[in-house]
Amino acid sequence: MPVNLSAPVAGQLLPVAGVSLGIAQAGIKYSNRKDLLVIQLDAGSNVAGVFTTNRFCAAPVVVAREHLAAGQDIRALVVNTGNANAGTGEAGIQAARTTCAELAKLLGCEPEQVLPYSTGVIMEPLPVEKIIAGMPQAIANLKADNWFDAAQAIMTTDIVAKAVSRQVQINGKTVTVTGMSKGSGMIHPNMATMLGYIATDGAISQPLLQLLVKDAANASFNCITVDGDTSTNDALMLIATGKSGVVIDDTNRWQMLEVVTEVATLLAQAIVRDGEGATKFITIKIEGGKDEAECKKIGYAIAHSPLVKTAFFASDPNLGRILAAIGYAGVTDLNVETLKLYLDDVLVAEHGGRAASYQEADGQRVMQQSDITIRVVLNRGAVNATLWTCDFSYDYVKINASYRS
Amino acid sequence: MPVNLSAPVAGQLLPVAGVSLGIAQAGIKYSNRKDLLVIQLDAGSNVAGVFTTNRFCAAPVVVAREHLAAGQDIRALVVNTGNANAGTGEAGIQAARTTCAELAKLLGCEPEQVLPYSTGVIMEPLPVEKIIAGMPQAIANLKADNWFDAAQAIMTTDIVAKAVSRQVQINGKTVTVTGMSKGSGMIHPNMATMLGYIATDGAISQPLLQLLVKDAANASFNCITVDGDTSTNDALMLIATGKSGVVIDDTNRWQMLEVVTEVATLLAQAIVRDGEGATKFITIKIEGGKDEAECKKIGYAIAHSPLVKTAFFASDPNLGRILAAIGYAGVTDLNVETLKLYLDDVLVAEHGGRAASYQEADGQRVMQQSDITIRVVLNRGAVNATLWTCDFSYDYVKINASYRS
Repeated sequence: MPVNLSAPVAGQLLPVAGVSLGIAQAGIKYSNRKDLLVIQLDAGSNVAGVFTTNRFCAAPVVVAREHLAAGQDIRALVVNTGNANAGTGEAGIQAARTTCAELAKLLGCEPEQVLPYSTGVIMEPLPVEKIIAGMPQAIANLKADNWFDAAQAIMTTDIVAKAVSRQVQINGKTVTVTGMSKGSGMIHPNMATMLGYIATDGAISQPLLQLLVKDAANASFNCITVDGDTSTNDALMLIATGKSGVVIDDTNRWQMLEVVTEVATLLAQAIVRDGEGATKFITIKIEGGKDEAECKKIGYAIAHSPLVKTAFFASDPNLGRILAAIGYAGVTDLNVETLKLYLDDVLVAEHGGRAASYQEADGQRVMQQSDITIRVVLNRGAVNATLWTCDFSYDYVKINASYRS
Repeated sequence: MPVNLSAPVAGQLLPVAGVSLGIAQAGIKYSNRKDLLVIQLDAGSNVAGVFTTNRFCAAPVVVAREHLAAGQDIRALVVNTGNANAGTGEAGIQAARTTCAELAKLLGCEPEQVLPYSTGVIMEPLPVEKIIAGMPQAIANLKADNWFDAAQAIMTTDIVAKAVSRQVQINGKTVTVTGMSKGSGMIHPNMATMLGYIATDGAISQPLLQLLVKDAANASFNCITVDGDTSTNDALMLIATGKSGVVIDDTNRWQMLEVVTEVATLLAQAIVRDGEGATKFITIKIEGGKDEAECKKIGYAIAHSPLVKTAFFASDPNLGRILAAIGYAGVTDLNVETLKLYLDDVLVAEHGGRAASYQEADGQRVMQQSDITIRVVLNRGAVNATLWTCDFSYDYVKINASYRS
């Protein structure tokens, strides 16, 4: 079950002027399931994104990058679940192009003005005819106040839909930011996430939008991991419709970055809280490092260790496993004598071993919680990094051994 | 249960002249369990080893390195299970020194002539008084034909003891090599292994012995992984007593390397076959790479992927997960159009996607086997690498969530 994560409430998700969303049941893998989403954008919107670095990146990622690079106004995004259209070779590229061309025909725009996304099983042909057949239903369903259903339509092994809204006052006017994400397994984003869509009615130029999405991704989706597997289909898109009339420029971009990062962080953390089989949400803070790279190396060594993750599942303060992970993280000049390890407020280790003040009962108390912070103070520099992950349970194995996701 | 791995047969393990082994039940963590091993060497033996690169390396690793560097004849090795004496700070170092000093007193040698090893739980104080109390029992038990019991004495979560003997004719005389290893979880050796001890009666100089152990480790223990966790206590030791009278030099060292590597490979593979919760033994061959580093990057990305490992546990040919792992391995200029993926003899993927000839039934047939080979042909160079790993099962989670190892 998701860890301290509630589903969004339909009425609390704010529409973003210039964005409408339509859902269909296209029967791509299962019948009677929302599996097709069309996001239509008003003319004059800007769109920027970051994508997976996986060399086996999916066909829709290739085509979405091409269409973004073509520089035309983007008028629609189309997302299917049930099939990732990844590891599908040239036929997969053609299927993604056909999807864009057919939707463009129905919406009266060019194929290059449509961006495609897919998520689901890898290395199976995309049933493009089902997607095309579902498009009229999705278009008939298009409306601005549809983020709740849209967040449900992009779920795969997700248990809870993930969406959030925020508003911020800039230049005396209200700017709205609403976003949604999906993802539960194969989560170790690298310059991107599983699927995330954030829209704002701020007026943001294309180059600035690209900067914003990159910075926000680095502080949110690029700081989470469930199982260390980087997906073939990761994409985080940021849409700016400009309908609020608030122009974002160098004087106020930091306000925009702050609110977009907040939304992105909540969406990214929601993916971890709903991680496959998760029973614990674990925040890993690495402090006092020489640079961000070494902080993240140590943080991800802890976050990816099956031994650490199973100990958290068991609520067993077998914390020597964290020391082992710190030790093999690849920071070759790390001095283990000077670092400190904390579990929440409890000092666990210092001077290369267990702290004299440490009591097993204190570790046990923290391990029982569902939200836990591991803090490693390196005492070798001024850089900090924070990551989020979850534990490793029977259910992770069950989900991935019994369901072809 | 171990995958196609039989326990060694007592009578088939050959003594190595100059080496005697004695076992005791010292009650270090459990009572009525062999948990202390003393290996005594005749004067004139040489010993070389490779150790973990974990920065939190255990106290016995620190002391064993020091004593080897001191350059005196090594006369004994002492191994305890039940406690790793790792993450124990200065008190741990003192405990390892005391262990060596006490054994030296009983055997009539210097503390620097004794090498200590520990394996078990991390970050708990070593009960050195129990080890000392068990020493007389181990010494009384010393005999040459004791490798079978010794292999049992060093087990922790291992189900099956691991030991093997080989003989080779060099310069017309017989040289014997016998080795043993232990390890089941926290297995991703880096320049070493969990614990491995190989002895030969060949006469090998110290510098040559060091070369041999390094080369043999690189081709065996450094090619296995169970869970990607590099232990704090890894050590592989090679002992040469010289009792065969066969001098190993530059003219015949390749024969010696071959037989030592064969023994080391069998011992390393035995660790994977007995990997925690393992139900499948998986050989990963990466062929046609530009260099060894990129072959190992791709091989370990596959070997460490929880999604790949759970698919093998389920015997589910969800082989797109292997493509995803290849894609995120970090080989940034990898061309996915030109590589081929095979499962045993079955061509699974080429031209960036599923092979036209691939049938799910063929994949399913191979996935049912207990020994499976994944072969990735990169077609970008002439270098090959082979790794060995196992699948990821409910029992891995069970073992590590319910037992404080």
